[in-house]
Amino acid sequence: MADAEAIKRVAQRIVAQKKAGHDVVVVVSAMGDTTDELLDLAEQVSPMPPARELDMLVTAGERMSMALVAMAIENLGYEARSFTGSQAGVITTSLHGNAKIIDVTPGRIQEAIGEGAICIVAGFQGVSQDTKDITSLGRGGSDTTAVALAGALNADACEIYSDVDGVFTADPRVVPTAQRIPQISYEEMLEMAASGTKILHLRCVEYARQYNIPLHVRSSFSQKPGTWIVSEVEESEGMEQPIISGVSHDRSEAKITVVGVPDKVGEAATIFKALADAEINIDMIVQNVSAVSTSRTDISFTAPKEFGKVAVSALKKVQEKVGYDSLRYDDKIGKVSLIGAGMRSYPGVTARFFDAIASSGTNVEMISTSEIRISVIVEEDQVDAAVQAAHSEFQLDADQVEAVVYGGTGR
Amino acid sequence: MADAEAIKRVAQRIVAQKKAGHDVVVVVSAMGDTTDELLDLAEQVSPMPPARELDMLVTAGERMSMALVAMAIENLGYEARSFTGSQAGVITTSLHGNAKIIDVTPGRIQEAIGEGAICIVAGFQGVSQDTKDITSLGRGGSDTTAVALAGALNADACEIYSDVDGVFTADPRVVPTAQRIPQISYEEMLEMAASGTKILHLRCVEYARQYNIPLHVRSSFSQKPGTWIVSEVEESEGMEQPIISGVSHDRSEAKITVVGVPDKVGEAATIFKALADAEINIDMIVQNVSAVSTSRTDISFTAPKEFGKVAVSALKKVQEKVGYDSLRYDDKIGKVSLIGAGMRSYPGVTARFFDAIASSGTNVEMISTSEIRISVIVEEDQVDAAVQAAHSEFQLDADQVEAVVYGGTGR
Repeated sequence: MADAEAIKRVAQRIVAQKKAGHDVVVVVSAMGDTTDELLDLAEQVSPMPPARELDMLVTAGERMSMALVAMAIENLGYEARSFTGSQAGVITTSLHGNAKIIDVTPGRIQEAIGEGAICIVAGFQGVSQDTKDITSLGRGGSDTTAVALAGALNADACEIYSDVDGVFTADPRVVPTAQRIPQISYEEMLEMAASGTKILHLRCVEYARQYNIPLHVRSSFSQKPGTWIVSEVEESEGMEQPIISGVSHDRSEAKITVVGVPDKVGEAATIFKALADAEINIDMIVQNVSAVSTSRTDISFTAPKEFGKVAVSALKKVQEKVGYDSLRYDDKIGKVSLIGAGMRSYPGVTARFFDAIASSGTNVEMISTSEIRISVIVEEDQVDAAVQAAHSEFQLDADQVEAVVYGGTGR
Repeated sequence: MADAEAIKRVAQRIVAQKKAGHDVVVVVSAMGDTTDELLDLAEQVSPMPPARELDMLVTAGERMSMALVAMAIENLGYEARSFTGSQAGVITTSLHGNAKIIDVTPGRIQEAIGEGAICIVAGFQGVSQDTKDITSLGRGGSDTTAVALAGALNADACEIYSDVDGVFTADPRVVPTAQRIPQISYEEMLEMAASGTKILHLRCVEYARQYNIPLHVRSSFSQKPGTWIVSEVEESEGMEQPIISGVSHDRSEAKITVVGVPDKVGEAATIFKALADAEINIDMIVQNVSAVSTSRTDISFTAPKEFGKVAVSALKKVQEKVGYDSLRYDDKIGKVSLIGAGMRSYPGVTARFFDAIASSGTNVEMISTSEIRISVIVEEDQVDAAVQAAHSEFQLDADQVEAVVYGGTGR
């Protein structure tokens, strides 16, 4: 929400849902630049603001927007009541700035709903179970609040509004012919979120799956349906589900190779123990016979670029113990992933994916797979070509399947 | 507090108190224009915002400043913890926008003090006893929070910081020779606050008297001592207390005269019942023999100008019942008051006051007195002259008593 006008639009949208006969609970984020402005103020006051106080400060942003939304709704003639995370019963761990929701006890919300009020809840925040301090939930916190509340309230659905029309078969900035996916399973969405699709945060989808809450990701700027994320994708008009749901990519990781690791039991464990102790999230791991010596192996892994330096220094500390030869660090890489629940029963998918990538002139550096995903690491400037090739290979382009999306005759 | 720089200055001042060996609890107000900006946003969203939501919104202002102050203190190497009104245990009535403090249960504050932390509390807010909703306290709310907390914590003193150096013998804008009053009793301060001295809100002084908390009103821009408000003013060096503490004035009231009220039992009661039902605070009341008829009286009273219209319409409704002739409304008046605990034992004070006012060419329209105050209503443009004359008559001007204030030899 950018300003007062945006808040009034949001209020109209909420009232429309209420008019349609639904009980409505809305989770709001802060307006426009509010959070950044508050962080900027904090920085002016203290170079290293204490996390507890930073949470006190930034959670004021949602508090302002929730009160304004409630006012705007009342101005349209409907009863509205706003609640802070704490008032809404969002109980969290006490890790300020990145707290996790432990439980939601929405007694006050239920009471207000019972009285016919529309409830407006501040997203991104809760109250810690131990210290009763105000906490913020970190990235994806508003969406996660919405899903957790929907779970606790046994809601029919949870709608997530953003500036995009839904989840697409690929990033439309890379593949202009990418299309909105009408329905996708939790598992596929989790794989997409984990492999670079930024629409929803992983935590939020995990919550939705856990409580089996249908999610509807849609645009706050239009009335068009978006993407439904559900446990079982409905088969439309007797047609089978598509093999592939989409292609996602991620440029946020770096590849680190530990060259010449002695081929002995426990060496890999030592390496990954050192990385775990430094709290580095590892994504893909590949082990090869080393180019240096046949009695040695190379171990490559990827991790977020922001942890690159920490990872390298953690590994240098165990170089003597492990006895590896050297480290190679490459942050000019990208990950391209093909996601689809249908690929389980189609063994040819992997081959078609590699073919497509090869025909785009892209070299594959690492591979990892799950039941419903294949990911490859390629050079950073070949990501777009690889994504486009895969998208086209699996007939996801709009000109090929337009009838499916808008006519409902295919798929 | 205007901005980040102001917050850092406040933090330094607080830390200085901690260094001096005190346990420190600080009540903060919102930064600069924050509250006005929030009210402006509310107005953009709704012409008549619901009071509950308005409280949710505006209390965010103090929340931001308290977190920033706590950060700034931690940056100076001292432990600080901020608390909302609700967290600090400020329990109020549920009248949003103008809630009254019912109780203060500062368990979390006491715990934090016990752990050596400086506590920063959001002023102006609390939580309602019945509905557990966030409330704001209305005018003077931050000062009242400070005094109420000081009472609940059994504090040695409560310091109120503002942009003035303390309480003065008159408004320095009207009387340039007015001086700071070093000490004044709760009773005198109550009379001054009630008769136009804007430094402290009435409620705040009432609280301080009730819990016998010494108040120190001082400037946030200097280290100079301000005015101590205490139960018993100390006599300095064996000298008696001055007869008069100060002269205050008030231009916020209007005078309403009910002309030609039949001189029967119960007529005045009907009139003031009508005004009470319209929730109008009456200040002075005077009853005279009417100029219209000798069997009738005129009843004049003063009330805040903002209630003028409501008062007139409430009175018109009972015109037939009471049988009065007409109403006269005059909002071009001012009140001038002389305050001093010493006047109890000096019967000549009233005569000297009237003499001084008469010699300034000012006509007195109404008079009311208490044990330690004399107030007169005069024409609005004669207020300054009357204040100056009274101030001079009782030797309050700086050139006459400078030695008292700075040398401590007089009074």
